[in-house]
Amino acid sequence: MERLRIGLAGLGRMGRIHAANLARHCPSAELVAVTDADPAVAAAVGGEAGVPALPDFDALLSEVDAVVVATPTGTHAELVARAARAGRAVFCEKPVSLDRPATVDTLAAVAAAGVPFQVGFHRRFDPDWVAATERIRAGELGEVYLFRTSLRDMRAPDPAFLASSGGFFLDVSIHDLDVARWMVGEVVEVYATGAALSDPRFAEVGDIDTALVTLRFASGALGVIDNSRSAGYGYECSTEVVGSAATVRIDNRPPRHVRWLTPGADIRGIPRDFQERYPEAYQAELEGFARCVLAGQPVAVGGADALAAYDLAVAADRSWRTGQPVRPAGGA
Amino acid sequence: MERLRIGLAGLGRMGRIHAANLARHCPSAELVAVTDADPAVAAAVGGEAGVPALPDFDALLSEVDAVVVATPTGTHAELVARAARAGRAVFCEKPVSLDRPATVDTLAAVAAAGVPFQVGFHRRFDPDWVAATERIRAGELGEVYLFRTSLRDMRAPDPAFLASSGGFFLDVSIHDLDVARWMVGEVVEVYATGAALSDPRFAEVGDIDTALVTLRFASGALGVIDNSRSAGYGYECSTEVVGSAATVRIDNRPPRHVRWLTPGADIRGIPRDFQERYPEAYQAELEGFARCVLAGQPVAVGGADALAAYDLAVAADRSWRTGQPVRPAGGA
Amino acid sequence: MERLRIGLAGLGRMGRIHAANLARHCPSAELVAVTDADPAVAAAVGGEAGVPALPDFDALLSEVDAVVVATPTGTHAELVARAARAGRAVFCEKPVSLDRPATVDTLAAVAAAGVPFQVGFHRRFDPDWVAATERIRAGELGEVYLFRTSLRDMRAPDPAFLASSGGFFLDVSIHDLDVARWMVGEVVEVYATGAALSDPRFAEVGDIDTALVTLRFASGALGVIDNSRSAGYGYECSTEVVGSAATVRIDNRPPRHVRWLTPGADIRGIPRDFQERYPEAYQAELEGFARCVLAGQPVAVGGADALAAYDLAVAADRSWRTGQPVRPAGGA
Amino acid sequence: MERLRIGLAGLGRMGRIHAANLARHCPSAELVAVTDADPAVAAAVGGEAGVPALPDFDALLSEVDAVVVATPTGTHAELVARAARAGRAVFCEKPVSLDRPATVDTLAAVAAAGVPFQVGFHRRFDPDWVAATERIRAGELGEVYLFRTSLRDMRAPDPAFLASSGGFFLDVSIHDLDVARWMVGEVVEVYATGAALSDPRFAEVGDIDTALVTLRFASGALGVIDNSRSAGYGYECSTEVVGSAATVRIDNRPPRHVRWLTPGADIRGIPRDFQERYPEAYQAELEGFARCVLAGQPVAVGGADALAAYDLAVAADRSWRTGQPVRPAGGA
Repeated sequence: MERLRIGLAGLGRMGRIHAANLARHCPSAELVAVTDADPAVAAAVGGEAGVPALPDFDALLSEVDAVVVATPTGTHAELVARAARAGRAVFCEKPVSLDRPATVDTLAAVAAAGVPFQVGFHRRFDPDWVAATERIRAGELGEVYLFRTSLRDMRAPDPAFLASSGGFFLDVSIHDLDVARWMVGEVVEVYATGAALSDPRFAEVGDIDTALVTLRFASGALGVIDNSRSAGYGYECSTEVVGSAATVRIDNRPPRHVRWLTPGADIRGIPRDFQERYPEAYQAELEGFARCVLAGQPVAVGGADALAAYDLAVAADRSWRTGQPVRPAGGA
Repeated sequence: MERLRIGLAGLGRMGRIHAANLARHCPSAELVAVTDADPAVAAAVGGEAGVPALPDFDALLSEVDAVVVATPTGTHAELVARAARAGRAVFCEKPVSLDRPATVDTLAAVAAAGVPFQVGFHRRFDPDWVAATERIRAGELGEVYLFRTSLRDMRAPDPAFLASSGGFFLDVSIHDLDVARWMVGEVVEVYATGAALSDPRFAEVGDIDTALVTLRFASGALGVIDNSRSAGYGYECSTEVVGSAATVRIDNRPPRHVRWLTPGADIRGIPRDFQERYPEAYQAELEGFARCVLAGQPVAVGGADALAAYDLAVAADRSWRTGQPVRPAGGA
Repeated sequence: MERLRIGLAGLGRMGRIHAANLARHCPSAELVAVTDADPAVAAAVGGEAGVPALPDFDALLSEVDAVVVATPTGTHAELVARAARAGRAVFCEKPVSLDRPATVDTLAAVAAAGVPFQVGFHRRFDPDWVAATERIRAGELGEVYLFRTSLRDMRAPDPAFLASSGGFFLDVSIHDLDVARWMVGEVVEVYATGAALSDPRFAEVGDIDTALVTLRFASGALGVIDNSRSAGYGYECSTEVVGSAATVRIDNRPPRHVRWLTPGADIRGIPRDFQERYPEAYQAELEGFARCVLAGQPVAVGGADALAAYDLAVAADRSWRTGQPVRPAGGA
Repeated sequence: MERLRIGLAGLGRMGRIHAANLARHCPSAELVAVTDADPAVAAAVGGEAGVPALPDFDALLSEVDAVVVATPTGTHAELVARAARAGRAVFCEKPVSLDRPATVDTLAAVAAAGVPFQVGFHRRFDPDWVAATERIRAGELGEVYLFRTSLRDMRAPDPAFLASSGGFFLDVSIHDLDVARWMVGEVVEVYATGAALSDPRFAEVGDIDTALVTLRFASGALGVIDNSRSAGYGYECSTEVVGSAATVRIDNRPPRHVRWLTPGADIRGIPRDFQERYPEAYQAELEGFARCVLAGQPVAVGGADALAAYDLAVAADRSWRTGQPVRPAGGA
């Protein structure tokens, strides 16, 4: 059983999830080494995974066939380009960059190098979404009329994080915009409205915590995304696609299939964050990456998808700022 | 729109439910008068329903075409017989009597008088059970393999009530035994086990608060009933029938279709008692009675069903006392 | 038990539902007579309800204390005004008129007459929505962040009907716009997008079959309505309100609480139309009307609500036609 | 990260599941080699897992620190004893033997050798059951009144298999009997009834396909197990425990959290077999075994549990054959 030799750069929350998955749950991947700006963190995570902590990204590149880039967003573009030029396959967390020219340049560097490049839209690998989308592709839904999705976090992140997040639409809505394209097709117009409701600090930094994004698809179908950073009750990720022949719903998934009945109350659990909801998806996206690279097949979600979702998020941001519907850059 | 002129005797909890339903929700019935051992209660309930309170059962009989008997169990047999001899159609709460010869004699009196006689097995009229049973009758389940049902009260009744209840099986399990016969067919053997767990006073009066009754149907199918007087979390009434072609489940019904999501908890309501679960069934059993009587058609659940369920409850009681499986009296 | 003497005008689908409810399920109402443009229909429905069919609306007014107006929309304004001038309490199906000045004049006539006036926004009386809204009012949700609702019909109506419907937003979305105001408060801006997807005849008459309406509430909260005339799978009416302390969901309600399990498929039913979903709501709105009139209390949803929902629907229509967000007439 | 060096014997359906899990999903285990009576099967499975196929059990023992025994039931006792005498930790599929003296002797050999011994009751490791049982242990349920569980296969196995299965209670019910003991405590009496309903071949070999087992626990609580080999609609494994303070339910888990809505039907999936329901449990039982052995801690479910469940299954079998309630051997 051949395994893809992978190095992991960036060991924040997402990087540690990837470390654990690469070490244990991806039979086609072999975690070879890790690196992080903080050597102590790299040593600790490497130790736990049983792999060496290397001093920097170049050292990592020299040891592996592929890299997973989970560093802070501002470094993605440069690291991806460097890895591509070194001929390494690349898996990169979204977004490639908060800047469109930098995104385009990075994708051009990847294309020039001819290396596989996958972006971290994990929901495309979740078994629930995969099952739904396969049935849509097979025509079982008929013609799509309406797409509706909710993505909500339980608690807002630290405002310090917001400064480098790229704003609400590039940080949160981008996942749903990618899912919309994947499930229903290209989006030709977006209209977004937003509000800062849960904490005055969102407004202070010119950001929002709640938004609605209306979509018009090239097919004529309509769509709507609702997003929140502060849903309070838990993490929500659920989608519905209404079609002429059938409708599919993907419900939020309880962490356990256990109900607790107390006087008058039938209680199910609610996941608290993406980590509790998506253990399989985060494993599957890396396993899928490794398999495609090993087999020389195209990855499931690549540079063009990253750019298209970026453009939609930027369009949503502009719509929110101007109060006008906006057609995304890049056309559809 | 013809209406059956009905008099109601016995204005305890069940009688008041019947009074409200006859006054408002049974278009084929006209509540004409009420009576109760306590004249003040009769006056109050009659006032609310806008009908006279009569001094006794004979006065009631003289004013109506049909009677609903919801008096204490010990009086059922005599009142039913008296009403039958007076040529009145009779609806009687279960059981006809705690004594088999009295039950048989009463049913004989009814038969001799040739009057319609319906017993209060309300679940036969609940739209959920009706829908399930109609599909079973239509053969959609195929051959029945297994019947399983739960009937549980939230809180135990006052021990003072227990003395006249006829014991657990005649008071509680009898409803499920009737439903078992109705949905699957005759029962040829029962095995019951019971325990007094929630309150020592059950054991003190030689009664129980929790029981399991295993059934063997004439068809070869198996069945099991679980009953509790003290489920704590709420009222439960749910049934499952497993068949060769399909399985049907009737779930406990939440009082409202509303979910309340608080941090980590997705909460639905649970009914607290039979009144909250079965508003339609209690209306429908009286409306069904009135319609059948007016149309000269046989009622849906009559004397033979009352006796068969009685015999099964007595067999369960004997099984519990002896620790042996028991074949019910009356054969199958 | 006093009953309000009610006459019913207009015996189309909705009128017949009201006739059956007034005849059977509204203890505070007494259906006295009916009328319809088609005397044969009036005779048939009156016969079934056991009340006379009168030749016209004036004849009806002379016999009753209150009227229910369920005639075609184009006649509402005149009939309401006539009934008001005659001093009768009025219940009128929505909308009062497709024309704003006519609506305003009619409400002025009602106000001048000082008669009770209720408009047919039935969902305000459904026990599920009432339970949710009471808890929101009681502060259990905290501050509202997001309102989301779906109202979808299974199959589109005959295109002949569309001509007089007032268009999608006045015919369909108006119900959700009223619910939004009732649950969350005034709406200060709407943005609507729509499409004709299920049948080319919608586009031919300049109408749509699918729409999304984004709302901005005066409180700062956001909202979104999705509507369809052709959901295909069934009738859908469900609502979610996300708040800082809790979130409430009202799910679509299956017609029966029965699950049918066939190989690999656990199947629940879906209601097919509003009649199957809302039996209680249609009863409760008339019973509530009768009780308030009898008690001299204000009705639950009156002229100002009718006008506000009308203005929001017109704003949605304008937004859809112009592609711009629109602030409703009448202010907030 | 230390790993327990494990050899796997027996590569039927269950053995192959273990092979895949040991190779990929158990970070504390290292699959070192496999063996099977059929060398071709051993070569194929070993090849897929990337480990050598050894000619026999003794060869396997010489290479490893622990063995997983998934061979046909008739060989368990001898292989377990041999491994124990060789000082190897042992994980063995249930049952140890169909014969009580052989079971006792084997457990004695294990005890004499002082090696860890775990039996394959996987449900003790499923996250849903673990979550429920932990809350019961923590006292959140209060006093247990009632235990109810269903274990049903979708389709009956080949009759050829039945001959060596040990009969219905030792093959099917034993899992629920272990779960009953684990969740609620010792069982002092069982009553079983059974039937052969789905296929005449069950009766021909003196076996059944449907059974009910009533339990009386030492605590006084009651329990009931229903089992079927031919539920038809799918695989069912669900449990309910009713307590004085709360009730817990573990529902059957759909394979995907996707609902498919077609006209009038809201459809969820149903698992088809244990493999689809229990991927985590089968991984967790081996990972738990490896961790306990490495850490020198007692395994979670050992020889005494295996014997107790065996005795209860035999008691159920005797009860079914005699029609009498039976107290299990070994006392409680």
